[in-house]
Amino acid sequence: MRILFFAALLGFASTILADEGMWQPHQLKDLRHQLKAKGLNLNPRKMGDLNQFPMNAIISLGGCTASFVSQQGLVLTNHHCAYGSIQYNSTEDNNLLNTGFVAQTMGEELQATPGSRIYVTESLREVTADVLASIDNSLSGKDYYDAVEKQQKQLVAECENSEDYRCEVYSYHGGLQHYLIRQLAIRDVRLVYAPPSSIGKFGGDTDNWMWPRHTGDWAFYRAYVNQEGRPADYSPDNRPYTPKAFLRVNAKSVDEGDFVMVLGYPGRTSRHRTAAEVANTFEWSYPTAKRYREEYIEVIESVAPKGSKAGLKYQSTIAGLANYAKNYGSMINSYAKGDLLARKRAMQEAMQAWVNASTATKTQYAQAIANLEGLIEKENQHRERDLLLAYLGRNSMFRVSRDLYRLAMEKRKANTERDPGFQERDMGRFKNALQRVDRRYDAEVDKAVIRHFLKYYTQLPASERLPALDTFFALENGFNEAALSKQLDKMHAETQLSQEEQRLAWMEKPPQDFRASKDPYLQFAVAMYDTDKALRERSQEIEGELLRVRPAYMAALIAYKKSIGETVYADANSSLRISYGSVSGYSPQDGLYATPFTSLEGLLAKYTAEGEFDMPKLQKQLIEKQQYGPYLNKKLNSVPVNFLSTLDITGGNSGSPALNGKGELVGLLFDGVYESIIGDWDYDPKLNRAIAVSSTYMLWVMQYIDGAENLIREMTVER
Amino acid sequence: MRILFFAALLGFASTILADEGMWQPHQLKDLRHQLKAKGLNLNPRKMGDLNQFPMNAIISLGGCTASFVSQQGLVLTNHHCAYGSIQYNSTEDNNLLNTGFVAQTMGEELQATPGSRIYVTESLREVTADVLASIDNSLSGKDYYDAVEKQQKQLVAECENSEDYRCEVYSYHGGLQHYLIRQLAIRDVRLVYAPPSSIGKFGGDTDNWMWPRHTGDWAFYRAYVNQEGRPADYSPDNRPYTPKAFLRVNAKSVDEGDFVMVLGYPGRTSRHRTAAEVANTFEWSYPTAKRYREEYIEVIESVAPKGSKAGLKYQSTIAGLANYAKNYGSMINSYAKGDLLARKRAMQEAMQAWVNASTATKTQYAQAIANLEGLIEKENQHRERDLLLAYLGRNSMFRVSRDLYRLAMEKRKANTERDPGFQERDMGRFKNALQRVDRRYDAEVDKAVIRHFLKYYTQLPASERLPALDTFFALENGFNEAALSKQLDKMHAETQLSQEEQRLAWMEKPPQDFRASKDPYLQFAVAMYDTDKALRERSQEIEGELLRVRPAYMAALIAYKKSIGETVYADANSSLRISYGSVSGYSPQDGLYATPFTSLEGLLAKYTAEGEFDMPKLQKQLIEKQQYGPYLNKKLNSVPVNFLSTLDITGGNSGSPALNGKGELVGLLFDGVYESIIGDWDYDPKLNRAIAVSSTYMLWVMQYIDGAENLIREMTVER
Repeated sequence: MRILFFAALLGFASTILADEGMWQPHQLKDLRHQLKAKGLNLNPRKMGDLNQFPMNAIISLGGCTASFVSQQGLVLTNHHCAYGSIQYNSTEDNNLLNTGFVAQTMGEELQATPGSRIYVTESLREVTADVLASIDNSLSGKDYYDAVEKQQKQLVAECENSEDYRCEVYSYHGGLQHYLIRQLAIRDVRLVYAPPSSIGKFGGDTDNWMWPRHTGDWAFYRAYVNQEGRPADYSPDNRPYTPKAFLRVNAKSVDEGDFVMVLGYPGRTSRHRTAAEVANTFEWSYPTAKRYREEYIEVIESVAPKGSKAGLKYQSTIAGLANYAKNYGSMINSYAKGDLLARKRAMQEAMQAWVNASTATKTQYAQAIANLEGLIEKENQHRERDLLLAYLGRNSMFRVSRDLYRLAMEKRKANTERDPGFQERDMGRFKNALQRVDRRYDAEVDKAVIRHFLKYYTQLPASERLPALDTFFALENGFNEAALSKQLDKMHAETQLSQEEQRLAWMEKPPQDFRASKDPYLQFAVAMYDTDKALRERSQEIEGELLRVRPAYMAALIAYKKSIGETVYADANSSLRISYGSVSGYSPQDGLYATPFTSLEGLLAKYTAEGEFDMPKLQKQLIEKQQYGPYLNKKLNSVPVNFLSTLDITGGNSGSPALNGKGELVGLLFDGVYESIIGDWDYDPKLNRAIAVSSTYMLWVMQYIDGAENLIREMTVER
Repeated sequence: MRILFFAALLGFASTILADEGMWQPHQLKDLRHQLKAKGLNLNPRKMGDLNQFPMNAIISLGGCTASFVSQQGLVLTNHHCAYGSIQYNSTEDNNLLNTGFVAQTMGEELQATPGSRIYVTESLREVTADVLASIDNSLSGKDYYDAVEKQQKQLVAECENSEDYRCEVYSYHGGLQHYLIRQLAIRDVRLVYAPPSSIGKFGGDTDNWMWPRHTGDWAFYRAYVNQEGRPADYSPDNRPYTPKAFLRVNAKSVDEGDFVMVLGYPGRTSRHRTAAEVANTFEWSYPTAKRYREEYIEVIESVAPKGSKAGLKYQSTIAGLANYAKNYGSMINSYAKGDLLARKRAMQEAMQAWVNASTATKTQYAQAIANLEGLIEKENQHRERDLLLAYLGRNSMFRVSRDLYRLAMEKRKANTERDPGFQERDMGRFKNALQRVDRRYDAEVDKAVIRHFLKYYTQLPASERLPALDTFFALENGFNEAALSKQLDKMHAETQLSQEEQRLAWMEKPPQDFRASKDPYLQFAVAMYDTDKALRERSQEIEGELLRVRPAYMAALIAYKKSIGETVYADANSSLRISYGSVSGYSPQDGLYATPFTSLEGLLAKYTAEGEFDMPKLQKQLIEKQQYGPYLNKKLNSVPVNFLSTLDITGGNSGSPALNGKGELVGLLFDGVYESIIGDWDYDPKLNRAIAVSSTYMLWVMQYIDGAENLIREMTVER
């Protein structure tokens, strides 16, 4: 009943906010008037069909988006999405990251990094009834969570009837809707072409999230299948996959004001969170996490200085920590300058007033709102401890030992009964993660990080302490740095988990072997297991409650928004979405305007001949001579490099094609501007700008610099 | 003969480069067509008259420009130009820099910092013939220099017939023209109004030279004279000076594209230097000086950490060092990105071709060009040593001891025979400088700086070493840090020059007392005297040569430019000039455009409640309420704070009024953008932008925040 009602609600669009929204394919038909008015020349109804052009050309790499750009399974994505594969094929003598790589024939193509997949979404079926129908709504949080998980796992298991497919149930609106998505999983993926990093990563971390931008962030893969056209492991006998549709590439790219849309797999947004969640996140979580990350980096660098052997191992860990410290910094800043919380509160008050205005709405929604408020308060009760434990748990030995023992414990259950991440289908990734440890682990760093965060832990009030942890590290009487250091020295000296073959061997051992082991880190994992499990269960208890309560709240929100003529889009959840907007600059601050295009001359102005701002010599010469051929944009009097648009995107949209009104590829999305990082919470039409690399620049580089004319010939280029 | 010929040349303008140029008043009539076309509504011929509006309202503070803005001698200039006077009147309990200051009546006005002067230019007479006519052109460099100096001093002495006047001979085009300028020197100057630094210095050093900018950089003085209307020392009986003209203030300020002009006293530019001088400056002098300054700062901070007592004494020294390190950095950067040298070379080649094209021009100019080239080479011969000695000589004890002994030596000559800076007219400033030493001196820093630069000095080749310096510090056998430290410790422990009364007492003593003194720094000064004098004379020898050779080169340049229809303006030399242009944004880099106005909302966005980005509470409240009254600019939907224009300005233009076509004050110039710092060498119409504070913002603050409505009533405000 409830479900049908909401389905009806979701069907009818009226007003929507300009350019904001990551729409589900089936919503496109309801947006047809706006899309037409904006400049779409395709049929919005047909666009909703996953098995037709252009939707069928849009694929997922798991974390990144990509698209087919030829009938021979040629795949276009971001350089940073293919980075691992370029690195995997590099040696000290032949560093493809530096030199770039072009396969002039299919025979020259290289295998992508192990585990690479291309997911082609073939079907998307609403399974809300299947998931929820049989579940007793009065179950406690944890039981409700388990029941939903069980239903979802069952749907997935039925769907994944061969290893050709990967299925997943995606929840929308916090669980108001569930869709079963079935994707063909192509597992012979090959690297076809990547520009040198001096093009593909031009500007590096300095320019990350920044405008003006001049990054050539593209790379090409190819999907291969076996002689029968089915997914298969790598084999020289495999042949290119023939997609149902592929995108044509427009060499002219776009002009200011042009309609653009993006099709892709945006990861996570939090646009529909409550005022309380917003306040907690921006006034506590992000500032605290930013501090933890900055301290984490300081601790690593104090033990493993930049350039040292240990330092090299932590480069990517530090980059990751710094990346989100910068991200949180931007969001904290935007939040302080803006009025997000005030608007949230005003919206919630208006919604509450609307709910209270009639007995019907009051009966239906009032409790849902109150329930969610209460639950969020409960969720935040242990926030200090929860966040601290999350950062404390990031070090290698804590993570590896606990994952291994948990795997041993999970293995006692039937495969489908196990926790996600510990099922047979997850074992490939589990093993890969264990293999990767050595490259990013140094005992001294691990110990220093544990000491740093355990010190904070001992400052928690008694009620927040974990007896198992206190006992294991003898923290009952406070923080004793000398004693702790001694204990950690011993543990790291004695543990065998620092050796890859030992880690892999423990993947196969039963729990009793762990309990009998004298390895200090396995003892740690065993000692913490019940506590970890209890914390997980508490978290699942709340998640389960949220899974029941948030949909009810979202139903209230959707009904209220409908009453004022607004359609609601679901928060991003890594499922296929469409955003649309236009090519447009913005004012990052008073007295400055970011113009929507950068040009080759700007690239040259940033050039320093070293580090993040180097470029191939040939490229420099061509720019100096203004040798732009057919790629000259007369308005710019140059070749457009990157462009800005109002497109509503987030992480996961990396590699997504930007399409013009005819569905031709005009660019590749790869980033957003600094002022739009808060976009995951709040779309500000004045500041939310996505950054794309222009198709014109890509083709100019392919033709004149990288010698990838074979691929230009293979694609269908509109000139 | 020569002189008359050049005078004729300089008279006739034809084409000029748009918006570039700091024009002499008499040139305005030749620019009348351009000025009219651009939007000037005044008569350019009358504007050239120093005794009429608006020129007579433009005054000099010595280093800064200001203007009269009422009939009661009210003077408007920059906050940073009145900074010393605000500081001088501040106490720990009543810090006017923090609180700001408004005199509600004349009786409440405060005396400006001792030595403050307001110079009203009354006449400007060409004296080229007087200076040069009697000088034998075949004199050697030093003799030629002395002869010119003697003629100039004589003209100055005749002109300065009472202490009411200050006269000076200004040289144009490197000495092609000389003008005797006579200025009424008003010496009872009072502080009338200064906003708090949170307005007047908003953005501080962070925003210095930067756009977007939100600085309220204004302050008001008043000029007082005695009952007879003549300049006089401070007396309660003095009355406000009545200027011949004053500027009306336009409350609407300007719009994008509007004509603006600036009248003021720009300090120094180098627009007509040769390619060799450009190359030497940008490829050697600036990079080296930047490095010396950065090292100087490091040395100071290593001995006197930030926040320490000694550190506080060096705050302004460090700020000065850092300021020009940043300045040089910008210029080095602009030079590297641009093509200044290539354009200079092309111009010089074209000029040479024009000179070579006829026997007449060849005879007249070929030698002049060759002479200058040779002389510049000679000047650069000892550049390493010269620059090093300049930085080595900056420490307090080197400076004080040498100045005192040189004064004693100069005093043996008749007053007019003495070197500039050592005549009776200079003694007030000389004494002030000696008094100020304590506030900026710490023995440990002095010693560390001497050690640092003496180490470099010992690395110079033998031919560049100074035997007197080598002997005094026992450097003949290289740098011995321990020995040097010991010697410096002893010198600083024993010298009496660290005491103010001792320094002042030595101002009056004869050379023999210096030579008999056991004070180690006086011994140092005596030991270095002959060497210092020889170096000065060598420098004067070259300066003398330049004084003869550069005018001949400039004559060639002016003649060549005339042949291609271009008028030449003289490089800035602190004399009264007019620049004109329009209100206009610019693109600081590819993908960004600096819009020409900032607004109150942008000011609020920068607000952090502390340090350089604080603001008065009342101001914050008014902006939040958008209480803009009649000062609302509808296009901006705010009050304009600062604006950009193409005006060609440099240091010395600080405090200059920006005027509209009717001669009404629409803003106050106070800075240029980062990309235009190289403007002293090269005006790039795309990047050269001056920053002014808008008259609208000034009036809004005066009326609503600072309570300076009495001054608004006193001025003539056009609304």
